[in-house]
Amino acid sequence: MSGILDPGPVDRAQAVVALGGGHGLHASLTALRLLVDDLTVDELTAIVTVADNGGSSGRLRGQFGVLPPGDLRMALAALCGDDQWGDTWARVLQHRFEGDGEMRGHVVGNLLIVGLWELLGDHVDALDWVARLLGAKGRVLPMAVTPMDITAEVRGLDGDDSSLTEVRGQVQVATTDGVITSIALDPPDPAVSPAAVEAILQADWAVLGPGSWFTSVIPHLLVPQLRQALVATEARLIVVLNLGEQPGETHGFAPADHLAVLAEHAPDLSVHTVIADEASVGADLPDLEALAAAMGARLVVADVALGDGTPRHDPRKLADAYAKVLAGAT
Amino acid sequence: MSGILDPGPVDRAQAVVALGGGHGLHASLTALRLLVDDLTVDELTAIVTVADNGGSSGRLRGQFGVLPPGDLRMALAALCGDDQWGDTWARVLQHRFEGDGEMRGHVVGNLLIVGLWELLGDHVDALDWVARLLGAKGRVLPMAVTPMDITAEVRGLDGDDSSLTEVRGQVQVATTDGVITSIALDPPDPAVSPAAVEAILQADWAVLGPGSWFTSVIPHLLVPQLRQALVATEARLIVVLNLGEQPGETHGFAPADHLAVLAEHAPDLSVHTVIADEASVGADLPDLEALAAAMGARLVVADVALGDGTPRHDPRKLADAYAKVLAGAT
Repeated sequence: MSGILDPGPVDRAQAVVALGGGHGLHASLTALRLLVDDLTVDELTAIVTVADNGGSSGRLRGQFGVLPPGDLRMALAALCGDDQWGDTWARVLQHRFEGDGEMRGHVVGNLLIVGLWELLGDHVDALDWVARLLGAKGRVLPMAVTPMDITAEVRGLDGDDSSLTEVRGQVQVATTDGVITSIALDPPDPAVSPAAVEAILQADWAVLGPGSWFTSVIPHLLVPQLRQALVATEARLIVVLNLGEQPGETHGFAPADHLAVLAEHAPDLSVHTVIADEASVGADLPDLEALAAAMGARLVVADVALGDGTPRHDPRKLADAYAKVLAGAT
Repeated sequence: MSGILDPGPVDRAQAVVALGGGHGLHASLTALRLLVDDLTVDELTAIVTVADNGGSSGRLRGQFGVLPPGDLRMALAALCGDDQWGDTWARVLQHRFEGDGEMRGHVVGNLLIVGLWELLGDHVDALDWVARLLGAKGRVLPMAVTPMDITAEVRGLDGDDSSLTEVRGQVQVATTDGVITSIALDPPDPAVSPAAVEAILQADWAVLGPGSWFTSVIPHLLVPQLRQALVATEARLIVVLNLGEQPGETHGFAPADHLAVLAEHAPDLSVHTVIADEASVGADLPDLEALAAAMGARLVVADVALGDGTPRHDPRKLADAYAKVLAGAT
C-alpha cells in the first residue's frame, strides 16, 4: 500500500453485549443497531430476561413448559435488517392477534419461536434461525435456558411498613402496590447458555438497562454465571437509567435510587459509565453525581428521551450517546 | 455464436399449473418440484382449495374470517427449497402443536400465514412472502380469495335411497355416510385471484388431482372463472386418479367412476391425459380405458404408488410419469 497516505489510527470496531428485557432492551438494541450500520459496532449480542409469566408468553410457557418467548422475540425484531425483507418479517413477528377467540393476544413471533424450540430442541439454535430469517444485525440469547420466576420482598403490602411479604412472578412483582426492597430468582442458579457467558467475556462494552428495573434489568445480576462473567470481563459496563419511576416497580425512585438498588444487588460489579436523561434527572442531578462518583463511574447526562410525553428513549439520541461513550469522547 | 456447433433442438421448459388440495396436492407438487430441479419445468403454480372447515384451519377461519390456511401451507411446504434453509423452514411451517392447551392442533405455518394476511391485507402477496421464506420452487395461490363452503347432495342418508339430503362443509362432506351424487360451492361464484386465472391461461400443462375427489379436486371445476380458464387455455389437462376409493367421499368408486363424476361436473372440459396407478386399476382397466377413449383422453397406466400399504403416491414415481407425459413419450 506504499504511496497511499497513512489514514491515521482507525479505531477497532467494538463488540457490545446488551442485557435487559422488554421495551427497554428493544429501545437499546434499536440504538445499538444503528452503530452496527455505521460500523462502530461489529458484534452485537443481546441477553434477554426469561422470567415473564404474563400475556402471550405466560400462556405459552404454561402450556409448553418453554422459556417465555416474548422478550426474545422483541429483541430479535429490534435487530432486523433495515431492508424490506427484514422490516416485513419483523412486523410479522411482532403482529398480535386480535379477535375474540383462543388466539387473541398471541403474537406470531412467539408462536414461531416456540415451534422452533419444539422442533429443534435447542433454545439458542432456534433463536439463531429467527435471527437469520430477519437478517438480524446481532445475536439474541436467553438469560438462562430454563424458565424461572422472579420473587420480591415487598414492604407495606399489609399496611404495616415494617413487615415484608414475598411476591412471586414477573407480572405480580411489576405491579405490586408495595415497595420492593429486593428481588431473587427461583431457581436461584439457573443454567445459562455458554454463548451468553462467552459474549460477556469477549465484549468490549456491556450495556445494562434501560427497562423495568426489578423485573428486566436486575435479574441479570442475580444469575450467578452471568454476574461472575460481568465481574470477570474486561468489558466496560454502561448502565442506562430509566426516564422516570415506573408505577408498581419503582414508585418513588429517583435516578440515584435506581443506581443504588442495582449496586445493592451486585456489590462486586464495577460500573464504567452511567447514562441518564437530562430532563429526567433535573433537580436530582447532585445526588446522582455523588453516587456515580462514589461508585467510580462516569456520569453522562444527555438528552436521550423521545420527548413525546412517554418515558421512552429515542433510539437515535441513545445511539449518539452510546457512540460518544464508545469513542471515549465524553 | 458462429463457430459453435448447433446443439440441436432443445425442448422448451414447460409451465405447469397444479390444482388440488390437501395431501394429494402435496404429493403432486413434491413430484413436480423434482421436474423444476431437472429443468423440465420452469414455471410451477399451485392453485389450492380453500373450503376447509375443520382442524386448525377451520378454527382460524372461524376466528378471523380468513381463508383456511392449511392446504395452502402444505402446498408451500411441498415446494420448499431443497437446502437446509428450505427444509428447516418447511418443517417449522408444518409443525403442529401438541399439549393440552389452547394451541393444541394448531400448525405454525397456519398461524404465520394468517398473521401475514392480517398484516399485509392481501392473500396472494402474503403467500408470496412465505414462498420467498422457503425458497419455494413455485408459486402457491388460493382457488378463491373468499372463504367458501362445499355442499353436497347425498343419497341414502335417511335410509331411503331415492331421497337426497344436502350436506354442508368440507369435513361433513368428506365423512358422510351416504353416497355423494354432486357437489356445489357456496357462494357459487367466488372471487378469484387474477393470478390464478393467468397461470391457467399461460400454462403448457394443467394437473388436476390426486386428492379428495369431491372436496379437493372437483371444487376447482365449480369456480366459474377457473373452469372457464381451464376450458379456454391451450394447456393440456392431466387428470391424476387416486389410488383407491376414499371412505366417506368415494366409497365404492372404481377408477372410471372418478373420471365420470369429474366429467359430469365439468362437461365442457377436455382432458388430455389420465394417469392411473397400475396396481390400483387392476381389473377395472377395461372400463377406465373405455371411458378415457370416449372422452378423447390418453390413458397412462404406470406404477405411481408409494407401495407401503397406504393409498399414497410416490413423488419420485409420479415425477417420472409426469416427465414422460410432458415429453410426449407416452
